[in-house]
Amino acid sequence: MMNQSVNPGKSNVFQPISAAILNEMRQVLSESYLLTDEQERRDYGHDETEDLLYMPEAVAFPANTTEIAALMKICSQNHIPVVVRGAGSGLAGGALPVNGGLVISMKRFDKILSIDERNFQVLVEPGVITEHLQNVLQEKGLFYPPDPSSRGMSFIGGNISTNAGGPKAVKYGVVKDHVLNLEVVLTNGEIIWTGSNTLKNSTGYNLTQLMVGSEGTLGIVTKIVLKLQPYPTKNLLMLVPFKSAESACAAVAAIFQAGVTPSGLEFMERNAIDWAVRYVGETPVPIIESDAAHLLIEVDGFHMDSLLADCETITGVLENYEAGEIFFADDDTTKTALWKLRRNVAHAVKRNSVYKEEDTVVPRAELPALLKVVKDVGEKYGFESVCYGHAGDGNLHVNILRGNLTEDQWNDEVPKGIREIFQFVKSVGGTISGEHGVGLVQRPYLDIVFTQTEMNLMKEIKKVFDPTGILNPGKVLA
Amino acid sequence: MMNQSVNPGKSNVFQPISAAILNEMRQVLSESYLLTDEQERRDYGHDETEDLLYMPEAVAFPANTTEIAALMKICSQNHIPVVVRGAGSGLAGGALPVNGGLVISMKRFDKILSIDERNFQVLVEPGVITEHLQNVLQEKGLFYPPDPSSRGMSFIGGNISTNAGGPKAVKYGVVKDHVLNLEVVLTNGEIIWTGSNTLKNSTGYNLTQLMVGSEGTLGIVTKIVLKLQPYPTKNLLMLVPFKSAESACAAVAAIFQAGVTPSGLEFMERNAIDWAVRYVGETPVPIIESDAAHLLIEVDGFHMDSLLADCETITGVLENYEAGEIFFADDDTTKTALWKLRRNVAHAVKRNSVYKEEDTVVPRAELPALLKVVKDVGEKYGFESVCYGHAGDGNLHVNILRGNLTEDQWNDEVPKGIREIFQFVKSVGGTISGEHGVGLVQRPYLDIVFTQTEMNLMKEIKKVFDPTGILNPGKVLA
Repeated sequence: MMNQSVNPGKSNVFQPISAAILNEMRQVLSESYLLTDEQERRDYGHDETEDLLYMPEAVAFPANTTEIAALMKICSQNHIPVVVRGAGSGLAGGALPVNGGLVISMKRFDKILSIDERNFQVLVEPGVITEHLQNVLQEKGLFYPPDPSSRGMSFIGGNISTNAGGPKAVKYGVVKDHVLNLEVVLTNGEIIWTGSNTLKNSTGYNLTQLMVGSEGTLGIVTKIVLKLQPYPTKNLLMLVPFKSAESACAAVAAIFQAGVTPSGLEFMERNAIDWAVRYVGETPVPIIESDAAHLLIEVDGFHMDSLLADCETITGVLENYEAGEIFFADDDTTKTALWKLRRNVAHAVKRNSVYKEEDTVVPRAELPALLKVVKDVGEKYGFESVCYGHAGDGNLHVNILRGNLTEDQWNDEVPKGIREIFQFVKSVGGTISGEHGVGLVQRPYLDIVFTQTEMNLMKEIKKVFDPTGILNPGKVLA
Repeated sequence: MMNQSVNPGKSNVFQPISAAILNEMRQVLSESYLLTDEQERRDYGHDETEDLLYMPEAVAFPANTTEIAALMKICSQNHIPVVVRGAGSGLAGGALPVNGGLVISMKRFDKILSIDERNFQVLVEPGVITEHLQNVLQEKGLFYPPDPSSRGMSFIGGNISTNAGGPKAVKYGVVKDHVLNLEVVLTNGEIIWTGSNTLKNSTGYNLTQLMVGSEGTLGIVTKIVLKLQPYPTKNLLMLVPFKSAESACAAVAAIFQAGVTPSGLEFMERNAIDWAVRYVGETPVPIIESDAAHLLIEVDGFHMDSLLADCETITGVLENYEAGEIFFADDDTTKTALWKLRRNVAHAVKRNSVYKEEDTVVPRAELPALLKVVKDVGEKYGFESVCYGHAGDGNLHVNILRGNLTEDQWNDEVPKGIREIFQFVKSVGGTISGEHGVGLVQRPYLDIVFTQTEMNLMKEIKKVFDPTGILNPGKVLA
């Protein structure tokens, strides 16, 4: 399946990693932490994006800030491209070394350095797996809400690089809303902190928020201070079937207008849930043949009476949107099974076909219109799509299936369709990525959402942090 | 009282506004919207910071983005300093035209352009008064939480420029957590939007968050998209006396650790509340002679049972911190009176004495230690202080009274004390401004919180947006 591209983006401006440079790097890292073997490098040439492969020249596994600073000095001096890599679960190709060079894996930055229970904060290294961090915190009654579907493998540093979201974002916000302070190594090897460990900060420019979502193009995050909150002790979960996908989407905004803010509000098209059921191999709930879509709705908090009242409000709203029989998850096993279904849609689609994942986001009341545009455009350009996502945030993942499309259709026609979808998204105040990032694959569409002036500002900011352009070249910016 | 400084910061690099340039500006704005009369200009030479006065050469009152863009072109071409001004309620001197030049008042940008009830968003101009916006939204059941004490006069644009907070920030976050998208005029007159009207956005660098808190040094905000939420229908408010200020501060972190997130958690030293009572002329609650400090605690939400349970948890916690008899506000009149007391502390102090307001912020469990340092340092350098603020956020306002201090003590000794306080703040992970900004008066202390590398990055970012340095010169950066 793997498409072995031979670094088509490779540029003459960068230097190859010579034997002499490798020797310099070996002064910093021992042999076993610097891979050069082709077979081993291959694992660091792809992520979860389509079937793309770009080979790095070497892969480094530093274990601390000092080692990263030393590597950055070498790469700066020799003009070697550097791509920082988390767990490789990215869906926009952000971690692909399109110019070759050095991949820095953050795998060994895997320590939770300290949990401050008095101030609800955690100091953590970027290579900690999201779900592991969440579990350790939960044992202490603390909650770090952002959890992308990939949380079982993704690194917290990767989550920061794309400003990840996940199902809880609808109530608790995305990654950027939980990052207080970052230690960052700059291209020249200097080390900075971006902010303070406080809930409020009006002191200077917000370098923290500039770093969040910058996909490894501005600096290398080496320590992270996150804010936490008490872990909600109660939750209720329901799966709601609809006869039409548009009705399901229309119900979403109505729930918020009724005064309820769910802690999860997920949309799944019929084929998304069917494929996930087949992939997971369990059906926690009977799926009726005539149902076109489902909403998975969770409320959480500390008082069951309030949650029951919220559910009553929600079910009242749903009556106006042709909802079918609501399935309430009665116990933890059923809840886990339902969430597992939702979290595995992407994997299920992937097993079925190579696909392009578009991470559209709009103001949530525009969801029904977006869904219609996606289907109409698919018909026009001859592709099928599976749609699902974080409906409460207006964030619809559109998986466009390769299926039996020819090379020409896949490479020429599908992008035209994506362009039309993104143009609609922009026209209603939305944008082309809600939580996956621009990375490599969304760059051709940036002209839809940014003017030349806006893009130039971003390019100039990039130059401030990375004057020679060695950090994750060919990403984020047009 | 007014200290008539004669533009001591005035620099040779800027040009004065000549008659010819004034004529150019009159092509953009009619006579009545361009003030040059000395007496009229005086009103725009000071804000609420100490007794500082810096005279602008002219004051412009544009009414739309096009007019601002035209003014910016003239000022860019002629190298005229430009200071954007909201309501002038700033406490860090951010709106003072220290190099003379043009003050642009945003007074006429006073329209709420559209309220999107389906998507919980509002499009608003920067000159709308914060409280007015809140009231209009509340009538529709919508809530925009950030409300600095100055909300009755402050502009929403000013709130954005300082990343303002206010009492609700402890539960709902500060201004930055509610801004989705900004229209900004750059120094060369070009117009950009910084983001999208969506709850999630992983598309390019976060220019929105770079603009928030940049105190008019990067561009001029002309339109604002804010996110909203349902207005909480219920709240409970209590005033809690303590025999010692340290106990009051210590109780703060304990309340959160018990699992409750209040919607307000304010600290007032004894003299703060005494002065506010005298200033407001009402005493909604008996103040006992032996009480050293008070906490004002609010919980809000949609279900009274949950709020009562929260209050029970809080009162349980307070028993461990030598709290006196808790006063519950039973009706709206009493609630309003209590909040009025809190909101008027700064005015009350101001009536009593010229003062320097330090906007310290620390992780909240460090509050008792911070308070002790403030008092010890005051004793060492011979000044009195009144302390109060948003304890739930660890944000303590330290009002240092001029009282009978000599010119030398005020100008030489007090800053040494402030420096020591800020050094402590930094040592526990805090910073020198939580919600007021750096402006003019906190610049001498920036070396405490930023390294040279960090400050240089900010200066380079400033250059990207404002290459000739005409936008609010002499502010924010060291």
